[in-house]
Amino acid sequence: MTIVLGANQYGKAETRVVRVDRDGDRHALRDLNVSVALAGDFTEVHLSGDNSAVLTTDAQKNTVFAFAREHGIASPEEFALLLAEHFVGSQPAVRRARVAVEEFGWERIPATGHSFVRTGQEVRTARVVHTAGATHVVSGLRDLVVLNSTGSEFWGYVKDEYTTLPETRERILATSVTAEWRHLAFDDSYASVKAVLLDAFAVTHSLSLQQTLFTMGRRVLEEVPGIAEIRFTMPNRHHFLVDLEPFALDNPDEVYYAADRPYGLIEGTILRDDVPAAEEAWIS
Amino acid sequence: MTIVLGANQYGKAETRVVRVDRDGDRHALRDLNVSVALAGDFTEVHLSGDNSAVLTTDAQKNTVFAFAREHGIASPEEFALLLAEHFVGSQPAVRRARVAVEEFGWERIPATGHSFVRTGQEVRTARVVHTAGATHVVSGLRDLVVLNSTGSEFWGYVKDEYTTLPETRERILATSVTAEWRHLAFDDSYASVKAVLLDAFAVTHSLSLQQTLFTMGRRVLEEVPGIAEIRFTMPNRHHFLVDLEPFALDNPDEVYYAADRPYGLIEGTILRDDVPAAEEAWIS
Amino acid sequence: MTIVLGANQYGKAETRVVRVDRDGDRHALRDLNVSVALAGDFTEVHLSGDNSAVLTTDAQKNTVFAFAREHGIASPEEFALLLAEHFVGSQPAVRRARVAVEEFGWERIPATGHSFVRTGQEVRTARVVHTAGATHVVSGLRDLVVLNSTGSEFWGYVKDEYTTLPETRERILATSVTAEWRHLAFDDSYASVKAVLLDAFAVTHSLSLQQTLFTMGRRVLEEVPGIAEIRFTMPNRHHFLVDLEPFALDNPDEVYYAADRPYGLIEGTILRDDVPAAEEAWIS
Amino acid sequence: MTIVLGANQYGKAETRVVRVDRDGDRHALRDLNVSVALAGDFTEVHLSGDNSAVLTTDAQKNTVFAFAREHGIASPEEFALLLAEHFVGSQPAVRRARVAVEEFGWERIPATGHSFVRTGQEVRTARVVHTAGATHVVSGLRDLVVLNSTGSEFWGYVKDEYTTLPETRERILATSVTAEWRHLAFDDSYASVKAVLLDAFAVTHSLSLQQTLFTMGRRVLEEVPGIAEIRFTMPNRHHFLVDLEPFALDNPDEVYYAADRPYGLIEGTILRDDVPAAEEAWIS
Repeated sequence: MTIVLGANQYGKAETRVVRVDRDGDRHALRDLNVSVALAGDFTEVHLSGDNSAVLTTDAQKNTVFAFAREHGIASPEEFALLLAEHFVGSQPAVRRARVAVEEFGWERIPATGHSFVRTGQEVRTARVVHTAGATHVVSGLRDLVVLNSTGSEFWGYVKDEYTTLPETRERILATSVTAEWRHLAFDDSYASVKAVLLDAFAVTHSLSLQQTLFTMGRRVLEEVPGIAEIRFTMPNRHHFLVDLEPFALDNPDEVYYAADRPYGLIEGTILRDDVPAAEEAWIS
Repeated sequence: MTIVLGANQYGKAETRVVRVDRDGDRHALRDLNVSVALAGDFTEVHLSGDNSAVLTTDAQKNTVFAFAREHGIASPEEFALLLAEHFVGSQPAVRRARVAVEEFGWERIPATGHSFVRTGQEVRTARVVHTAGATHVVSGLRDLVVLNSTGSEFWGYVKDEYTTLPETRERILATSVTAEWRHLAFDDSYASVKAVLLDAFAVTHSLSLQQTLFTMGRRVLEEVPGIAEIRFTMPNRHHFLVDLEPFALDNPDEVYYAADRPYGLIEGTILRDDVPAAEEAWIS
Repeated sequence: MTIVLGANQYGKAETRVVRVDRDGDRHALRDLNVSVALAGDFTEVHLSGDNSAVLTTDAQKNTVFAFAREHGIASPEEFALLLAEHFVGSQPAVRRARVAVEEFGWERIPATGHSFVRTGQEVRTARVVHTAGATHVVSGLRDLVVLNSTGSEFWGYVKDEYTTLPETRERILATSVTAEWRHLAFDDSYASVKAVLLDAFAVTHSLSLQQTLFTMGRRVLEEVPGIAEIRFTMPNRHHFLVDLEPFALDNPDEVYYAADRPYGLIEGTILRDDVPAAEEAWIS
Repeated sequence: MTIVLGANQYGKAETRVVRVDRDGDRHALRDLNVSVALAGDFTEVHLSGDNSAVLTTDAQKNTVFAFAREHGIASPEEFALLLAEHFVGSQPAVRRARVAVEEFGWERIPATGHSFVRTGQEVRTARVVHTAGATHVVSGLRDLVVLNSTGSEFWGYVKDEYTTLPETRERILATSVTAEWRHLAFDDSYASVKAVLLDAFAVTHSLSLQQTLFTMGRRVLEEVPGIAEIRFTMPNRHHFLVDLEPFALDNPDEVYYAADRPYGLIEGTILRDDVPAAEEAWIS
């Protein structure tokens, strides 16, 4: 046998850049966390420590800051695109760049022009994978925590020897949505997608979290143009109805214990059948 | 010398209770994390393991759930009051109960009646300390992250041998506000206090974070009736202007690096001079 | 276009199970966090909410506890194997089971038989992917934090227009090792692999973190039999030499600032060229 | 009424400093997280933003690094003492300095001289409070996670209307110890105290966690000279015996579910009756 180098990448992770656009008294703010990963002809640095093909991660960080000044931040996706194209275009050894971005939301404090408060609701995400042959743009969000206090059932499942869960026609359904959608051609439809996700979660009468997940994905693909596929990771944040009988109390679907662990975890992809797959878009 | 037992308390921490109020199609939701700590005549359990005075922490947890059913959750403060009075009133050994509550905010998903999304902005807090002789109610919030993109200066400070920081007439001022205010008599003024805190942060032209902190506190005491004192913990979330000169770029207060550690930490109390101190209210 | 369901899986995540083996006064302890993910014929539950093929995640949790009693926990890998085979073997709809395990280490408190203290050093990990056709076993660890205070250089890299980093022949090299190795046939060689990883990190004179990473992997494959490939994720935990000149002090490689973000992130796979690839083993 | 400034302090938190002592091939390492808080005559900076009495937190950070070079780090307590005395001694406005330190442990990788691995077991802590009139030194640790698999009972407690917990003569007792001990005169007895804490936890047949806590404290005061008092915070990390009867299995104290929340929380102080109290030592 011979021992060889397989897949590898490197880069600067979590460069925290904030750009302020000052237009008189009314400022705008973008607040990003940018992670770069480069792959290509990097065998020598692994085998002998020869760094002659290596663009330092420190230079990658500098590039993030310089590009924020030179090009501004139109959106996390467009900023990631600029960076990914730059690294592949300027470094002969770099065959593929993946730029992942988190964006933290801020809203203006009422009646002010340059004061902001973090929205805190969800984190917007983006990732771009760029090679000489292809460019993939994926938008997303994480930590969008939602709950339906009715309209959720769970019954009709397998009963094996380890099944003790009683069936229910009424439960709380709660999850923290992580979703990422791949664009055919990037268009900044973030607000539309978020609105569809919230509405689909709310209006779906749910027989399982899987059904809710699929419906959310189907509706995004149907209602927002230009999206090839959407991937979800949705923990089932269990809310257990508390048994109050020992205290001579009923509990008419009113008092719940919100549990931490363990939790169900539901993952799924919804896609159009007329679009080629693109696994490369999803490298982490 | 003799070795003796000093101050002590015990209780159930972090009981996660969610109460749904169902009124036709329009539900309401309260989502709390409740921590109880009891103090009193508990020497024997420490010295000999005699538990005859001990109300189990498991029973405390049950009480939280049962009270959510029996009394509802009008506000985190009122729920904490009910619990604290119950433990002191019903257990001879318990001389003091402290009930601390975190409340997680939810807002209705537009155009729905029973679907919610976590607001995520700040966590509301409350604590009640109750003894036979006195009851203290403290309301608060944490993780309210705010930023002014202008209107902040920092100069005129001590220059000792370890001082290298250049003075500035223009910087970003950002912090994560933790504030707790003690009531003379509890009134649910949470929304008013939050609004004053945000406005005071925004409109204060700041020569130091201490000045901003004091102004925020002064304005709460002036504008919201019935508050004896307010305590702040405010980290200075440093945003450093990036030096882009090595890349032949200027940086006209536009591109910043948001740093994690270290950070300045500013703590202060603002109070009325006509109200007696009440250290007991603030036990952790 | 038609909208269809793509890849999907579901299961119970993070079941925390502790098993005590009592043998007179000398007990043994295994402390696991078990996450199950099942894939197969689950289209209906997504499309219509028909749960008739669904083994509940609650039953999966129960199975973890019951198997800990019935079979014991010989190692995280063997426990994961039992579970994965059970789910595929007993549920017609389940075509693939992935069981991921974290194990938390405990050591005996000196001179005692049933008292333990968490070692805290690293977390041991395991994952098994089982289908009718194949079984893959991957062992690993995370959070093994290591540091060389000398023997590390970094120079000879690309100098582009954004490069400002000075070359160095002496730096601190520190990282938090995440490593996972795929077995040809499982053998519990955890302690050997960990020892080789530590020794290889220590004795490699490093010209780059990539070189160190490759050497660590090569040595594991050379020195521990039966391993097909090993994958690393290694953040470069930057330790910056502090400039003390403003205080009229030199700094002969003595005082460092340990930075949090951003950080370099190095990822790589080392493998034998005579073993077929098995991407399925690595699904997350 | 008049609105006035109450207690306040400010400083630089979480300066991460690593010092390497190089002595030929055998290096030594200290890895600290240092937080400074200064109090004194700082009314003006709050009221008007006049910074003329303010030593910047940036200078405090610089001082930490410079002192690590000038004085070395003999122990976290001695390093904190040097810093606290410096700030009070050199700044007229500073009446009190509190320096809190976390120390992260490293052990040498076997058979090497300059390679280290994080021990990970517990975090060592220290805090010094220094004024013109008094100096207090508190040593401590946190995150020391311990477990007894037998030798713990819990019965004989109050049964109120919310009590459902069954009594037990056999349970797992597990906790994460946070302990801090105040010195009469500082002596580096960290290893001795940790050893006593572990042994006392292990050998105490426990009727309650409070009893274990008191015994741990009493033994430290008896066996380690020069300690005035010790304070504990000990969560009861519940391990619940899993009911396996639904699966036709017994569970002879063998398989447990390790729960996260809620948890019991036990806090207590053990002290010598011949030593004056010193609340000032414990400001956070």
